Amino acid sequence: MPRVHVNLSERSYDIEIGSGVLAQTGAFVAARTKVSHAVVMSDRHVEHPYARAVAARLHDGGVRVDLLSIEPGEPSKSVASANHLWNALLAAGADRKTVIVAVGGGVVGDLAGFVAATYARGLPFVQIPTTLLAQVDSSVGGKVGVNLPGAKNMVGAFWQPLGVLIDTDTLSTLPDREYRAGLAEVVKYGVILDEEFFTWLEGHVQEINQRDPAALAHIVTRCCRLKADVVEQDERETTGLRAVLNYGHTFCHAIEATTGYGEYLHGEAVSIGMMCAARLAAALGRIDESLVVRQRDLLAALHLPLETPAVAEEELLAAMQHDKKVEHGRLRFVLPTRLGHVELVGDVDPALARAALRGAAS
Amino acid sequence: MPRVHVNLSERSYDIEIGSGVLAQTGAFVAARTKVSHAVVMSDRHVEHPYARAVAARLHDGGVRVDLLSIEPGEPSKSVASANHLWNALLAAGADRKTVIVAVGGGVVGDLAGFVAATYARGLPFVQIPTTLLAQVDSSVGGKVGVNLPGAKNMVGAFWQPLGVLIDTDTLSTLPDREYRAGLAEVVKYGVILDEEFFTWLEGHVQEINQRDPAALAHIVTRCCRLKADVVEQDERETTGLRAVLNYGHTFCHAIEATTGYGEYLHGEAVSIGMMCAARLAAALGRIDESLVVRQRDLLAALHLPLETPAVAEEELLAAMQHDKKVEHGRLRFVLPTRLGHVELVGDVDPALARAALRGAAS
Repeated sequence: MPRVHVNLSERSYDIEIGSGVLAQTGAFVAARTKVSHAVVMSDRHVEHPYARAVAARLHDGGVRVDLLSIEPGEPSKSVASANHLWNALLAAGADRKTVIVAVGGGVVGDLAGFVAATYARGLPFVQIPTTLLAQVDSSVGGKVGVNLPGAKNMVGAFWQPLGVLIDTDTLSTLPDREYRAGLAEVVKYGVILDEEFFTWLEGHVQEINQRDPAALAHIVTRCCRLKADVVEQDERETTGLRAVLNYGHTFCHAIEATTGYGEYLHGEAVSIGMMCAARLAAALGRIDESLVVRQRDLLAALHLPLETPAVAEEELLAAMQHDKKVEHGRLRFVLPTRLGHVELVGDVDPALARAALRGAAS
Repeated sequence: MPRVHVNLSERSYDIEIGSGVLAQTGAFVAARTKVSHAVVMSDRHVEHPYARAVAARLHDGGVRVDLLSIEPGEPSKSVASANHLWNALLAAGADRKTVIVAVGGGVVGDLAGFVAATYARGLPFVQIPTTLLAQVDSSVGGKVGVNLPGAKNMVGAFWQPLGVLIDTDTLSTLPDREYRAGLAEVVKYGVILDEEFFTWLEGHVQEINQRDPAALAHIVTRCCRLKADVVEQDERETTGLRAVLNYGHTFCHAIEATTGYGEYLHGEAVSIGMMCAARLAAALGRIDESLVVRQRDLLAALHLPLETPAVAEEELLAAMQHDKKVEHGRLRFVLPTRLGHVELVGDVDPALARAALRGAAS
């Protein structure tokens, strides 16, 4: 079974990846911590069958189990939901011998992780991500948190899990649009860190589109390893190294903000944002037009959107200037210099950024 | 100027103690972190003059300053207050270059510290405790948090400050009852860790009761050093070593819970709880009756309450069995074996604990 070992100063842990690994939850938790009580957190979409299966496996191991479900969707990633879960933990008699097991996508993982980080000053925490995006992105790195009105992820912590279990079978029930949105982040890892992986993706488009189990296991394992490599060098986002993961995200956030959150899935906006970033890199002479074309062809083959929506360019530019990565109003972008390598480029001419929003190459 | 250096794996920092050190806030912060924005958090009781003075000194240093005040009192240590402050920080444009400066007692420090620990996944944080209890206790150790209904400190984190500034002049305006409540924790440090300090306290009762500045500086410096020694050996409360700080607290929590929070100040209940614990230690043959008498005489000389309130003993015993330190219903107590040394004693006969609630020696 593929395994990714994440080696951090705060805590080291394993990500186990495979088909059907959900059934091993009981042993996985028991091998990592002595607990007498587990609280499984999920949402209505994954409660049945995944969260219930996890709860049953924990129960088989002789652990008292409670199951807490939140409403699916981004609005649940709120202080109000965290407060609800804190009080539910108290009512369930949770203490430092309780383990929190998050079963679901990014919303469930981020919220449950934040609740685990802060209840009784920190409970052990296991993540079982069930969406492709969560499997390749939000379950590695220790970022947990909730949104404030108007500010995503503004309240949170760094809280590393005891371990992560990724059952690629859970992807079989993922809605098509969500599956594809996750693939945008997969392509991103190839562009920013791994030319060989990008080439592998180009050669396995059919298997990927058919959700072939072996292809999925390879993708998830490689992406977790790539993200872990970055996180290991910048655990608490202090060195700037994690910024490479933000390729396409300055454009992406502007698209999400101006179209209203919800119009595009995050991964869809990432796909469009990567196209803008690649065009900008080409305009700055950092890469060849041929790389823009290769990235476009792969994203298109995975049925991801490429075109910047019909929003006034002024509006998109203004939204970019509100991005957290902007310093003193100067635009900064993560841009490739070649396939598998990106750099943080400061002080970009707004006229070039605007031109990159749409282009011949898209 | 006395200084206590706290050496932790997560972060090491200094506690600077002295008369008038508040005026050095600007330089103290500037020496520790490069910030462009400070948010001073306090309550209505300390806003004028202390928090305003701190804000003015930060402003003198060229830092943009916002001042946020909460309602004084324990009910402010809530998720609702934290949520209010998170949103106020967002409205004030706080980001990772913002420092949080907490000016006040334990409620302000714990709440502001929790908000600092969780806003943008952690902001730098400076503590300026203005009550004796906060100066000798809650400003050392990194415990921050808020209460849930029915469960004190249930939501929180470990978040070490960049530094702590203790201006002993702030004690001159502290209400008499609050000052004395802080002295109970001071006596506690002598009993559990430092015979010499206990003897010093016995010899300086008059200076202490008159709030003599030199005596206060000595007390605060010694207590911070003693607590830092314990915390350095048990940063995240995992080794059990921090438990020594809970001397008297099992009885104390039972008294607070059965009389309704607010009837006794925490330090007052600690004083009564230490009398119960000392009697229990004597009944178990661990200490001489003479130590019970010495502790009683010192607490009495500092005008602290000694008598367990007129609550049914059944009720107090039941409350003790709900204490977090109880394992499987067996009572455990931190008890002295001699002046300056305590041990965790498990499986205590409830009849002895009940007898210790009141006694000839009190």
